[in-house]
Amino acid sequence: MNLLGRFKQGRLRLTRIEAFSDGVFAIIVTLLVLELKVPALKDHASAAELAHQLVELFPKFLSWLISFIIVCKFWLNHHHMLGLARQADYAMVWLNSIFLLGQSFIPFPTAVVGEYPNNRLAVSLFGCVFALNTLLFMALYAYIVRNLIKPELAAAQDPHGMRKALIGPASYLLGAALAWASVHAAFVIYALTPLFYITPRHYRDAAAEEQQETSQ
Amino acid sequence: MNLLGRFKQGRLRLTRIEAFSDGVFAIIVTLLVLELKVPALKDHASAAELAHQLVELFPKFLSWLISFIIVCKFWLNHHHMLGLARQADYAMVWLNSIFLLGQSFIPFPTAVVGEYPNNRLAVSLFGCVFALNTLLFMALYAYIVRNLIKPELAAAQDPHGMRKALIGPASYLLGAALAWASVHAAFVIYALTPLFYITPRHYRDAAAEEQQETSQ
Amino acid sequence: MNLLGRFKQGRLRLTRIEAFSDGVFAIIVTLLVLELKVPALKDHASAAELAHQLVELFPKFLSWLISFIIVCKFWLNHHHMLGLARQADYAMVWLNSIFLLGQSFIPFPTAVVGEYPNNRLAVSLFGCVFALNTLLFMALYAYIVRNLIKPELAAAQDPHGMRKALIGPASYLLGAALAWASVHAAFVIYALTPLFYITPRHYRDAAAEEQQETSQ
Amino acid sequence: MNLLGRFKQGRLRLTRIEAFSDGVFAIIVTLLVLELKVPALKDHASAAELAHQLVELFPKFLSWLISFIIVCKFWLNHHHMLGLARQADYAMVWLNSIFLLGQSFIPFPTAVVGEYPNNRLAVSLFGCVFALNTLLFMALYAYIVRNLIKPELAAAQDPHGMRKALIGPASYLLGAALAWASVHAAFVIYALTPLFYITPRHYRDAAAEEQQETSQ
Repeated sequence: MNLLGRFKQGRLRLTRIEAFSDGVFAIIVTLLVLELKVPALKDHASAAELAHQLVELFPKFLSWLISFIIVCKFWLNHHHMLGLARQADYAMVWLNSIFLLGQSFIPFPTAVVGEYPNNRLAVSLFGCVFALNTLLFMALYAYIVRNLIKPELAAAQDPHGMRKALIGPASYLLGAALAWASVHAAFVIYALTPLFYITPRHYRDAAAEEQQETSQ
Repeated sequence: MNLLGRFKQGRLRLTRIEAFSDGVFAIIVTLLVLELKVPALKDHASAAELAHQLVELFPKFLSWLISFIIVCKFWLNHHHMLGLARQADYAMVWLNSIFLLGQSFIPFPTAVVGEYPNNRLAVSLFGCVFALNTLLFMALYAYIVRNLIKPELAAAQDPHGMRKALIGPASYLLGAALAWASVHAAFVIYALTPLFYITPRHYRDAAAEEQQETSQ
Repeated sequence: MNLLGRFKQGRLRLTRIEAFSDGVFAIIVTLLVLELKVPALKDHASAAELAHQLVELFPKFLSWLISFIIVCKFWLNHHHMLGLARQADYAMVWLNSIFLLGQSFIPFPTAVVGEYPNNRLAVSLFGCVFALNTLLFMALYAYIVRNLIKPELAAAQDPHGMRKALIGPASYLLGAALAWASVHAAFVIYALTPLFYITPRHYRDAAAEEQQETSQ
Repeated sequence: MNLLGRFKQGRLRLTRIEAFSDGVFAIIVTLLVLELKVPALKDHASAAELAHQLVELFPKFLSWLISFIIVCKFWLNHHHMLGLARQADYAMVWLNSIFLLGQSFIPFPTAVVGEYPNNRLAVSLFGCVFALNTLLFMALYAYIVRNLIKPELAAAQDPHGMRKALIGPASYLLGAALAWASVHAAFVIYALTPLFYITPRHYRDAAAEEQQETSQ
């Protein structure tokens, strides 16, 4: 049997894949806050100095907030996506692991942009990482829809769904390009893009969704 | 379909929402201890110097203890609250995510107040964050009771429950205000307020609760 | 209704208590390794210098190893204990939370003793924390056996079980006392004590256990 | 009853063992990224300086990537392995805990090799740790196949499976030995070895697998 054939093997339960993924998501959103370091004060009792230092932390708060919302958005779409699959195979597990690899990387560019909010490369990198993560998500999504979808949901998939979904990565990359002209414009794009994904993609046939959920 | 309508869509399983939330809660309570840093000793073998340094850590122990108890209290009430819902929709998932955003922020003010226990702003901030978290919890609670409650539990809800629950945030804000006069008074308020919530809100009809649990 | 009465209320599902506790256990054992910091080398390419530095880390490896084994032991006994309960009430949830509070504290004395293995107070504190954790476990255990035990398992409980279980905390405290004479003797005691608990307490009636597990 | 006999006791549910293990796996893969520290820049706004510093981080990216993939591979094989067992006993729980101990150690050699990629000892240690982890996995695997396997799967096990599986640790040890001649050759071996395990070991009888999964 060739190597590619091996990946099509295996019939894994979705529950452990969900548990592992949920663990990774939960840790990522919680680790993000660790970048908010306690500021060093000269006068420990000075409220004014602390207030000043907290205001200085504003870029870190902002990057923490954007990353948190984006990871939650990925979690919600991941939840929806796994609901489409009737089972898992090894290829799906590996596509899922590579997607989680991308997710677990998010704290790094978040920390970099929080530390250097005026550095064009840092701001641009932030957007590129989210574009890459969205592409990894789409690869997993496409694999499930083509190979593992529950038969009763197959007809309800939008055939143009993938093309529409490319708006997401394109928008992040636009922000990443804009960063070289204006970091503020890039942050606005980054904050608005998740709205496109804030609820999972619609079915053409809402009845199919009803069917799916009640059968769980 | 408008944006608000999209949020009412979706019928999600509660199990993954619980798993994700439990992961976040578990990590928050465990991360809190990371603020207890190993003290630097000049004489590594000196028990007296270590004892002295551990006593100096007392404010960090105290803020860790208060935060741990408060997060556990949120977890217990969250557990109770999700038991009321018959299902989830996207709006509930997002209210839950924003609530978890507030929870995951808790280690930061905990660390700040542990480092600067005599800084009035630090102590005040600590209370404001808990007030905000309680309000986020109440928003999620109100949404579930109005939109997603199990039919058999609807009648058992206290119509004045929300008004009574405002005692919690009001008490934290009182502590936050008191901090500007006396940080010790504020800590006493912060330590006492969770007692109000230490068990979930009562039903008017205890029989309904029995019914709820046995049906799970 | 008085405050104590409120704690006897509530009928909670054990699954979320298990999920929350498993999360805390998993994070504790994994955080322990964070104390193993990468040593600073003058000559980055020198194998000899790295070897020397790794040997210096030996006390940290040892304290990490002992703590890991002890937390796994607590996890196993916790797993066994929750299997005895037919349901949970608020008092049990709070006893469980306080037990987890004790568990989540373990990384701190582990880090202290790893940093200062010859400091008698550090070594003594290490044992005291494990004694306290065992007592917190026993409090939860006693509450479950008295109030929440599955009827079919009640007869199988050893009436002298609690008294026998005191050997554990007594042994840790013996180690904590010995630390003031010899830190090496204390480490030997700490490493041997978990053996007493390495499998959960025996039933007088093995048949009852069979019954319990097959009914799950 | 002797000590060894005690380990054969106990009939534990696999679900909590999975939950605890999944938590540990999820935390390990996510902690790995914490070694990617935000570089210190002299000119905060300089894209060139940040680009230079990110390139310097390349060995850390590489060690993070290899470790992530290897831990995911262990997770997948662990998932497969627990699917073979009909139940757990105390010996299996302890073998699993010791396996997780090995897994949770992985962030340390990953950080060391990321910091000192040209240090032969660091590169060699990296391979030794993966060899040890594979052996711990095999010990657990062998125990399950001999003592706890589902009767319907017993016939499908490859009697030469263990001998074949030794290729993995042997390959990691080869890399660890090669590191003393060329660190680059060692990294190539480390990156290629997981491919051998990238899908769980094959059954001689694929039909048995079908049977296993559908009965879950």
